[in-house]
Amino acid sequence: MPTPVPQGLVPKTTDFADRIRANFKTQSAMTTFGIEMLDVVAGHTRLEMLANDRVLQQQGFVHGGVIAAAMDSACGYAALSLAAADREVLTIEYKVSFIAPAIGERYEFEGQVIKPGRTISFTEGTAFAINGGERKLVATLNASMAIVAAPDA
Amino acid sequence: MPTPVPQGLVPKTTDFADRIRANFKTQSAMTTFGIEMLDVVAGHTRLEMLANDRVLQQQGFVHGGVIAAAMDSACGYAALSLAAADREVLTIEYKVSFIAPAIGERYEFEGQVIKPGRTISFTEGTAFAINGGERKLVATLNASMAIVAAPDA
Amino acid sequence: MPTPVPQGLVPKTTDFADRIRANFKTQSAMTTFGIEMLDVVAGHTRLEMLANDRVLQQQGFVHGGVIAAAMDSACGYAALSLAAADREVLTIEYKVSFIAPAIGERYEFEGQVIKPGRTISFTEGTAFAINGGERKLVATLNASMAIVAAPDA
Amino acid sequence: MPTPVPQGLVPKTTDFADRIRANFKTQSAMTTFGIEMLDVVAGHTRLEMLANDRVLQQQGFVHGGVIAAAMDSACGYAALSLAAADREVLTIEYKVSFIAPAIGERYEFEGQVIKPGRTISFTEGTAFAINGGERKLVATLNASMAIVAAPDA
Repeated sequence: MPTPVPQGLVPKTTDFADRIRANFKTQSAMTTFGIEMLDVVAGHTRLEMLANDRVLQQQGFVHGGVIAAAMDSACGYAALSLAAADREVLTIEYKVSFIAPAIGERYEFEGQVIKPGRTISFTEGTAFAINGGERKLVATLNASMAIVAAPDA
Repeated sequence: MPTPVPQGLVPKTTDFADRIRANFKTQSAMTTFGIEMLDVVAGHTRLEMLANDRVLQQQGFVHGGVIAAAMDSACGYAALSLAAADREVLTIEYKVSFIAPAIGERYEFEGQVIKPGRTISFTEGTAFAINGGERKLVATLNASMAIVAAPDA
Repeated sequence: MPTPVPQGLVPKTTDFADRIRANFKTQSAMTTFGIEMLDVVAGHTRLEMLANDRVLQQQGFVHGGVIAAAMDSACGYAALSLAAADREVLTIEYKVSFIAPAIGERYEFEGQVIKPGRTISFTEGTAFAINGGERKLVATLNASMAIVAAPDA
Repeated sequence: MPTPVPQGLVPKTTDFADRIRANFKTQSAMTTFGIEMLDVVAGHTRLEMLANDRVLQQQGFVHGGVIAAAMDSACGYAALSLAAADREVLTIEYKVSFIAPAIGERYEFEGQVIKPGRTISFTEGTAFAINGGERKLVATLNASMAIVAAPDA
């Protein structure tokens, strides 16, 4: 496999999943896109978007920027799941590769921490289009995340 | 300057601006974000978004994915402006760097072709937050674009 | 795992491993770095470099550019392994992330095709520093590769 | 121009150019490639490589990894020129785009700080192949750099 996923990632808080789910609801962009959070575990999250007509490009596929935004959020929350309670996560940069057209009944977006750090975490994201029983990889992302003091910490 | 912009880019069609403006209107994601096209010239486009509450992340800044989507569109249309009439443009990949928080009264997004090609064009994008008279760089993007046969060509 | 590796990648030629090993020997940069090719299978290659003092940066670690060059070559040959006999592979672009300092007795570099294509292939690379029995991830790369007609084809 | 270069970048030290030139000499990879430092000013550096047969890929062009390593070094030193005396610079990640084949009598590599930061600086690099009087853009790079405490500070 291209990138080995670290085993035994240990969160610094016990309530990270609740805090992440609450934080996610404050991102109006995710609501606008119709994206919901499915899973949060230490170092990993999974989001879902049902097909909808607010997020398309000129050919009727999902706009690449929406796909990227979803993977970026998934990766940011994956990094946040391992951070201390008084930290927040800012995306420094990401690269996204568009592997296949994004056309499906629904979409899943996963974010995974590859290397957690005190000040920078490396993450990888994947996007899948799902039609019936088929789950097809449509895009990948890798992002470096800055772990910084939360403004209200 | 980091990347010299090529001079004398020559479009292959005379009606590229009209075709691009029509194509832009079919991207529902751009409408959802409230993004409009300001300028189209050969090898360069400029988009605008007024501040709105549909595109935010948890701190009230514009979501990075929206910023990236806008620059991606600006770059894609910049590439399309130089393509033959029977071609369309697909983003292969892009990298986006988040230089500063995106908070402004309005935003501008520019896309520029750095190296046009028959099958691949290299482009660069910039995003600015504008407050009063100040125009602040908030993000940069660089994207490689595939120039392919349009489905209905 | 972040990126699922496609199963059942089918090469278009039977002699790809021999051609790749011969081609690899013509890259003087690889010889200069002391890099050798270990494995070539369909869609995947593995290179090796023993520690040497020609490839270092100011702190005595292997220079990031050398690490990246090795992963780029591994990925390029992974893409070439699936191409037709009259094709060659050119790197369009790559992103490399430096996960940990590269200091080891020897190094391994893997390249994997994530999505083969007729004109563009997507690949991912990994770099490991090896000390005794420990194999530590030090960098990742992802590259898009253009599949083009070979000049002498 | 795609990315506006900040004006009035102010170095925190007066001897940065001397320290950078001394540091550069300790990178054996640069010596191996035959790369020398031409200019160092606040936020910008320029390197040079004469054509040589130690750095080639299979077609006789300069290996992309060498091009990238040179731009990475140029950008790292550009960031270091603005850092405090007790800091050093580590590359977090970079993306490199290969615009044109690198074939020339000599090559120049420039690094420019786009946004200096206390902990992270954003930089952009360019590579040129020079033949007679022609200076042709062959690659671009953008890198995020971590500004960290020097081990011996």
